[in-house]
Amino acid sequence: MIDKAKTRIGMLSPVAWRTPPRHYGAWETVASNITEGLVERGWDVTLFATKDSVTKAKLHAVIERGYEEDPEVHVKVAEYLHISEAFEHAHEFDLLHSHYDFMALTYSRLVNTPVLTTIHGFSSPKIMPVYYKYRDNYFVSISDSDRAEGLNYVDTVYNGIDTELYPLQEERGGALVAYGRIHPEKGFHLAIDVAKKSGWRLIIAGIIQDQAYFDEQIEPYIDGDQISFVGPVDVPGKNELFSQAAAVLHLNTIPERFGLVMAESNCAGVPVIAMDLGSCREVIAHGETGFVVQDVDEAVESLKRLPEIDSKACRRRVEEKFSIASMVSGYEEAYRRILEEGR
Amino acid sequence: MIDKAKTRIGMLSPVAWRTPPRHYGAWETVASNITEGLVERGWDVTLFATKDSVTKAKLHAVIERGYEEDPEVHVKVAEYLHISEAFEHAHEFDLLHSHYDFMALTYSRLVNTPVLTTIHGFSSPKIMPVYYKYRDNYFVSISDSDRAEGLNYVDTVYNGIDTELYPLQEERGGALVAYGRIHPEKGFHLAIDVAKKSGWRLIIAGIIQDQAYFDEQIEPYIDGDQISFVGPVDVPGKNELFSQAAAVLHLNTIPERFGLVMAESNCAGVPVIAMDLGSCREVIAHGETGFVVQDVDEAVESLKRLPEIDSKACRRRVEEKFSIASMVSGYEEAYRRILEEGR
Repeated sequence: MIDKAKTRIGMLSPVAWRTPPRHYGAWETVASNITEGLVERGWDVTLFATKDSVTKAKLHAVIERGYEEDPEVHVKVAEYLHISEAFEHAHEFDLLHSHYDFMALTYSRLVNTPVLTTIHGFSSPKIMPVYYKYRDNYFVSISDSDRAEGLNYVDTVYNGIDTELYPLQEERGGALVAYGRIHPEKGFHLAIDVAKKSGWRLIIAGIIQDQAYFDEQIEPYIDGDQISFVGPVDVPGKNELFSQAAAVLHLNTIPERFGLVMAESNCAGVPVIAMDLGSCREVIAHGETGFVVQDVDEAVESLKRLPEIDSKACRRRVEEKFSIASMVSGYEEAYRRILEEGR
Repeated sequence: MIDKAKTRIGMLSPVAWRTPPRHYGAWETVASNITEGLVERGWDVTLFATKDSVTKAKLHAVIERGYEEDPEVHVKVAEYLHISEAFEHAHEFDLLHSHYDFMALTYSRLVNTPVLTTIHGFSSPKIMPVYYKYRDNYFVSISDSDRAEGLNYVDTVYNGIDTELYPLQEERGGALVAYGRIHPEKGFHLAIDVAKKSGWRLIIAGIIQDQAYFDEQIEPYIDGDQISFVGPVDVPGKNELFSQAAAVLHLNTIPERFGLVMAESNCAGVPVIAMDLGSCREVIAHGETGFVVQDVDEAVESLKRLPEIDSKACRRRVEEKFSIASMVSGYEEAYRRILEEGR
């Protein structure tokens, strides 16, 4: 039986942004949520992050500011100094939990402390040789579908969102909504196809990550009437979208690793129509919290079945499986397996 | 007293290029020359380099090809895998000798083997925090002038050249020569000034590293008569230049770290007129192997004194101080200091 208060966890957050990030910074957000959740539950946590980070854990920092926030910071220098600092202190911890991708793995054999790596995504096939070399480390995947064969996975722990940010919408709206970073991978052009074929209204929101894509495949269809674009949205902006939504369309064109958009939408009680690629079928319970479809025609077809979806069931599933609390519980279980069972 | 055959040296070469490089690759060249020299003198050396490297030492390699030679190689992956591999084997060595800049330092505290780093140059003030954190490591500078305050320097060991490549020119030529990478730092525009003011012929050679500089400050003066440009030169090309040279102009505009051009020229018996910045006054013995000057006018003035310089004295100094043999001896002495005296 583990004594949380006596179990020292070293949490290695990225240093692209502050932990938690001021705005964008997905991995730092997850690292922060886990850290604060563990502290609240009584674990002894030290957070390795930028000096301006905010935490109730002990903060151990050697990098002034995130390299994405301060052009004066030398990325390579920051990464090497930050990662090595954590490993130089590894003996002070019972477990190091790394969110630092493949780079941190290369220090793992030089210390005796077990290292758990959350794989937030394989950014390129070219980084796989590092994972395979260190395959006997401990790994957590963020969905069952986002796994590489042969690595020593302890468990899948879904990312968790703060469910208080997205309260349940009492009434369903009448529009389709598609939001996120505007990039072909996120299939906004397919959402437009669905709107055109079904005649439903569509509201698009998000930061434009691929300007050519937006200019060529999105902008020409925006008429401000059936199809509108409202730009980037913050949390209140998302809630405003959810209040108008009959469903959120998430018609990704490449396998989704986890899918924050789906969890947020369901959290607010909004059904999600998602493409069956990657983790979508794990996050969305088909026929219960939305529909997992194979193509645009199936998406159009599923619109008729939206009344079958109970908003409260959507929210309940997020609270159980995709909340910060469930994520922290997932990592507690992973730590226990490593520390008690050595697996 | 050190038993060379029983002293295991791990040599960490960069993996930008093969060791030794096929063409360009200054650090890999030095690492190769030291490695082969040590093996010849009986040391037990393991070279960490790309898989296609060529050595009489034991080769330990995990990276297929240099990342500058093969666009398929992921630079960051290659660097992390390569460096960590050497440190994971550190316990097999009495000394690790790193040519891998600041990155390798960040692994040094995780092993018990002493690590000697040759600092081939500080590429940016932003990398200094790493050197300062690991200041108690062992360092070698490549000239007395290229030192950062406060680091634990064992010695200066000048880079050594293969003196057989540049045989002594029996007769002095009549032209001035300036060669190297065509970049403002190397002061080719000042060499042109010297030619213009003195009326001497000037031959310029080298790869164009800064095209705008070449187009604006060099090309307009090339008349194919007084001032000519012959493009990149290999070893035979340099010897051809030396045969025509009364002197080589090396009018650098920023501090020189070492200065291979000066050593090569002197090796062939050609006097060098060098700007008094950085290591030039260490490499050139003023009035003996060339002249160290403060500006263009002094360079012009020094042309009159060229007959004072004895070609044989130029070559003798290179053999004594800037040859591969003298470099290897320098490192042998540095190793002895670390292994016997712990300094």
